[in-house]
Amino acid sequence: MKALILGGGGMLGRKLAESLVADPIAPLERLTLVDAFAAPAPPAGATMPVDCVTADITDPAAVRALIEPRPDLVVHLAAVVSGEAETDLEKGYAINLDGTRNVLDAIRLVGDGYHPRVVFTSSIAVFGAPFPEIIDDEFIPQPLTSYGAQKVMGEMLLSDYSRRGILDGVGLRLPSICVRPGAANKAASGLFSNIIREPLTGHDVVLPAPRSTRHWFASPRSAVGFLRRAATMDTTPLGARRCLNMPGLSATIQDEIDALGRIAGPDCVARIHDEPDELIMSIVAGWPSNFTAARARSLGFAAESSFDEIIRVFVEDELGGVLP
Amino acid sequence: MKALILGGGGMLGRKLAESLVADPIAPLERLTLVDAFAAPAPPAGATMPVDCVTADITDPAAVRALIEPRPDLVVHLAAVVSGEAETDLEKGYAINLDGTRNVLDAIRLVGDGYHPRVVFTSSIAVFGAPFPEIIDDEFIPQPLTSYGAQKVMGEMLLSDYSRRGILDGVGLRLPSICVRPGAANKAASGLFSNIIREPLTGHDVVLPAPRSTRHWFASPRSAVGFLRRAATMDTTPLGARRCLNMPGLSATIQDEIDALGRIAGPDCVARIHDEPDELIMSIVAGWPSNFTAARARSLGFAAESSFDEIIRVFVEDELGGVLP
Repeated sequence: MKALILGGGGMLGRKLAESLVADPIAPLERLTLVDAFAAPAPPAGATMPVDCVTADITDPAAVRALIEPRPDLVVHLAAVVSGEAETDLEKGYAINLDGTRNVLDAIRLVGDGYHPRVVFTSSIAVFGAPFPEIIDDEFIPQPLTSYGAQKVMGEMLLSDYSRRGILDGVGLRLPSICVRPGAANKAASGLFSNIIREPLTGHDVVLPAPRSTRHWFASPRSAVGFLRRAATMDTTPLGARRCLNMPGLSATIQDEIDALGRIAGPDCVARIHDEPDELIMSIVAGWPSNFTAARARSLGFAAESSFDEIIRVFVEDELGGVLP
Repeated sequence: MKALILGGGGMLGRKLAESLVADPIAPLERLTLVDAFAAPAPPAGATMPVDCVTADITDPAAVRALIEPRPDLVVHLAAVVSGEAETDLEKGYAINLDGTRNVLDAIRLVGDGYHPRVVFTSSIAVFGAPFPEIIDDEFIPQPLTSYGAQKVMGEMLLSDYSRRGILDGVGLRLPSICVRPGAANKAASGLFSNIIREPLTGHDVVLPAPRSTRHWFASPRSAVGFLRRAATMDTTPLGARRCLNMPGLSATIQDEIDALGRIAGPDCVARIHDEPDELIMSIVAGWPSNFTAARARSLGFAAESSFDEIIRVFVEDELGGVLP
């Protein structure tokens, strides 16, 4: 199998590449990792050829060159995140809409029976308030951000091109990925990770939202599991509905803090300082917080069932199993 | 008021222009009608300047030139219809997606406080089977055609650009417009009009779908009423949800034929010849057939309540009130 990961330098892209090298989903003949800025580093322990490439997905010719070797699996993670898509309208549409369309059109233009599996990461940001208490798989996508609108448009392209037999698409509406390692990115959802990661690595952290805020979470490890499942699943049961609400855990910030206290003790919790920020609070209030994810669960997608588990995954995968 | 009608040479565009000239919604300073092929004819009786222009909406510079005079009202009817969008993928996306985006971006690029009302015609083709018995305003758009996917994408742009304060958009998911005058276009939905129009104008006609087929209808006169309402309504109640399922009449082909019999007699009905066509039947089976349209009705949008009424509108507006 030849696999192409667009956005291969991002957090999920790197973790997926490491996972595919450590435990291939099929004999891996070649792996290509692409990112916009710097070429991603090849994952440790890779025994197959790994191409690490810098490319701009808003350039149709550059995307055609990436698709020309006919990868069997295309994982499209490349995106401008929510905060940046809101502040820079042109960049958001260029990368999240045109970039996605360039990928799908490059596949279409190969023709000649080429019909790869395409895994596209969408987001729960396709949904906008008002929400029911729990969002089922029939809930209407009415985004309240440009990022969410662009993700719906990507979903439409993915489903239409799949229906037309151009490619075999699976769209994953990811929960907020938590606990994100490393520095915060521009996604406003970073606060849910910051309040766990910073105390666990010995830093104080500001909490800008009320502790009653409820949101929908899965760990990076679960997200890699979603991508692997989407890459290998039988897509027949999807029919024309190619996009799935991914499973996760519904938890409040207080639930997060309680779990942190159980795992790392009160001194760690004391590093969290409540400093409500009106702008962040208004953004967060518009986010969905609970899903059935019944379709995805029935198709074998699974996530954590407690925040303790989410924190333990972070400690195992990012801190070498060592608590402060 | 300056009004710009894109797709002004089409059936609805011409009728809207005639209506705006005969009964202006506001003092009409200038009317511009645009179409892709031939410049539309100016409506009879126009006392204000009417520009009739040929332009390609897939050309961003051409669209910017149309928007440069800052029309207060932009009615965007220009589209490739469902059948053609399905057979010609590139043309469908170029006109229905890129063309719409060019219009909205041309408005954005004017800036300087320019904030026109934009009326965008979407379609009930944004919905795909399986359907509930009656579709409410919360039903999920899951199109099963490229045309439907493109219309959802246009809706997303319209809502996002409205939310961002770039324009003041209203999207109308039109029912099948029936009875369409003149020659059939490439829309598969033409059959519902053909079986009324052809007998009433002295011609035999083939009916390729079963008489039990149920669909969702409004007359061209109602559609013009929708456009006028969307051009003038207070958009505050729309909030971030800028697109509305338009009211209509749920009727079967048999209902159509019964109404034709009541109005024009059995000799007229005898001109309809059942010749089932598998392809047409499979297309029609995937279409929605009944809506509450509760939001739109509460906002003052109204349509016919019987097929007799729809036929009478056709006879009055297209046949000078004269039955064969």
